[in-house]
Amino acid sequence: MELQNDLLLRTARGEAVERPPVWLMRQAGRILPQYRALRARLSGFKELVETPHLAAEVTIQPVDELGVDAAIIFSDILVIPEAMGLTYEMVEKKGPRFPTTITSAADVNGLISGDEAAAQLPYVYEALRITKQELAGRVPLIGFAGAPWTIFSYMIEGQGSKTFSKAKKMLYAEPELSRRLLERITDTTIAYLQQKVEAGADLIQVFDSWAGILSPQQYRAFALPCLQRIASAITKVPVTLFSKGAWFALEDIAALDCQTIGLDWNILPDEARKRVGQDKVLQGNLDPCQLYAPPKEVRRATQAMLKSFGRKHIANLGHGVYPDTPLDGVRAFVDTVQAYQYDAEAS
Amino acid sequence: MELQNDLLLRTARGEAVERPPVWLMRQAGRILPQYRALRARLSGFKELVETPHLAAEVTIQPVDELGVDAAIIFSDILVIPEAMGLTYEMVEKKGPRFPTTITSAADVNGLISGDEAAAQLPYVYEALRITKQELAGRVPLIGFAGAPWTIFSYMIEGQGSKTFSKAKKMLYAEPELSRRLLERITDTTIAYLQQKVEAGADLIQVFDSWAGILSPQQYRAFALPCLQRIASAITKVPVTLFSKGAWFALEDIAALDCQTIGLDWNILPDEARKRVGQDKVLQGNLDPCQLYAPPKEVRRATQAMLKSFGRKHIANLGHGVYPDTPLDGVRAFVDTVQAYQYDAEAS
Repeated sequence: MELQNDLLLRTARGEAVERPPVWLMRQAGRILPQYRALRARLSGFKELVETPHLAAEVTIQPVDELGVDAAIIFSDILVIPEAMGLTYEMVEKKGPRFPTTITSAADVNGLISGDEAAAQLPYVYEALRITKQELAGRVPLIGFAGAPWTIFSYMIEGQGSKTFSKAKKMLYAEPELSRRLLERITDTTIAYLQQKVEAGADLIQVFDSWAGILSPQQYRAFALPCLQRIASAITKVPVTLFSKGAWFALEDIAALDCQTIGLDWNILPDEARKRVGQDKVLQGNLDPCQLYAPPKEVRRATQAMLKSFGRKHIANLGHGVYPDTPLDGVRAFVDTVQAYQYDAEAS
Repeated sequence: MELQNDLLLRTARGEAVERPPVWLMRQAGRILPQYRALRARLSGFKELVETPHLAAEVTIQPVDELGVDAAIIFSDILVIPEAMGLTYEMVEKKGPRFPTTITSAADVNGLISGDEAAAQLPYVYEALRITKQELAGRVPLIGFAGAPWTIFSYMIEGQGSKTFSKAKKMLYAEPELSRRLLERITDTTIAYLQQKVEAGADLIQVFDSWAGILSPQQYRAFALPCLQRIASAITKVPVTLFSKGAWFALEDIAALDCQTIGLDWNILPDEARKRVGQDKVLQGNLDPCQLYAPPKEVRRATQAMLKSFGRKHIANLGHGVYPDTPLDGVRAFVDTVQAYQYDAEAS
């Protein structure tokens, strides 16, 4: 089906566009009253992730309510470790938890991976197919996965952590075992993302949420090779790599086979462009807390950001929108981007 | 009393030295068996902080056990909000918690600040005096405080946070009230640090532990002016500013009246030196998780770091040492630095 609004894809392919596209990380979620209403009727977060027609419904809500230029499939990065053999729980107000973690070579060998693991997630592909059909070409649909280093961290730690020192300890103390686990996660992620593309994803984003916890040396040694394999394997649609906190690796990421690079709010657009060079499209990076400001301030800050990025830019926050963000702030952000015109610029 | 080992101070003053001095953030703590033994006999963390002769004892333990080139007074950055009127609790395995937080202008007005607040902490100054006496000039004694932005975050959030979105929301939604609170914290911190110097601190370090959660724009607007006031007010001893995660502000920090700039492990020494220029001494920045590696690897990584920094460097980790770090790794780090000779370098 032909897309009525393909601004995101034209931008990601590097074509000249009239204005930047805009969407928000975590736009399908608690910021929307219709999400909270639906969620309240369910047993828990995982029911929503695992029920395709519900996942499709919440995926489309922000397109209806906010008019954003893209939908992103409602899911969780932790379906990958689950498909490999480690079940996760979502603990209300605390976040995810794995009752079993990886501590030894035997644990790594006991996992399944690649196509066999990716085949455990039919509900995700079904959710994409339903969403595609129900969107009926209004906007592109983004598919996503966690980056292998981030998934590895959860599999070792069993939950979030301030320091991720267990996961990092494994890199330092058992580098070969670490590489083996990272490779198996990468194999699975590639098979999974290829199936997402088959099911209708128009663009793929890889979230390396814990990139910033690694030193530049470790990121280069352990995390980048996985991202490179994934970016090179996804050839049919554009790929966005978002390594949160890894400003130090931007030059390296810019050398990978991706089209777009996500940025957190810690880096100024100018500095990012200097590090990345002229080729790649940049995505980001308003501070999510900026949306707590009065709408007038949100408009000012959004315009300043757009101006600073110039062309080759997908407007977004520098992190997922926080659940208690006022809808007025979110709307001020989206509307400001959609009213922006590159032609009005001096450049 | 004359110092027998004044390597840290000579380095901080920019003098030519034979090798870098070395100490570890959180060296007085759970890595040492004698600390754990003493701690087990007490009612809790705060008893240790508030009992001068015990604080002095654990301050000196790493000098005895590891032979580091400096002692840092055992205390907590949260004594400042407590002195201003917000009592904190230390919850075992969870961290600090404030039963009452700041939510309004009335709350800010209700705090005490400046000399009056600093006068609430006689036990800290007494701990410094006892430590100075018991050290008998073996090594310099470092005094410290949290940076006002970090203290502000705790006072608003009431505890640690993944996003610090409440504290950041206050900056965006109530900038004037935020500035007023930051100023009162700064007044208190200056009075407190001046008393620490009077009590014997040979160098002052300011920890901005949550610097990295702010955007470059917000850090410049709210955090830097406080650091500037503190650095300019402490004139009798060298000042180290350590803003964790604020790589984007290094040029700005380099323009302040400090002698040394602390670095986390996310930045390569070359890049830090380029941003900071030639004047300031740099401190850091081995990844604390590197000490989990076999001692041979610790030695290799430490040597690589020392070589990369060259002169004008105080060897340390990029963050406080983690409590479960093997002492063998810590010793390999300290011993490698102390065996290093600048003369052996090609430069």
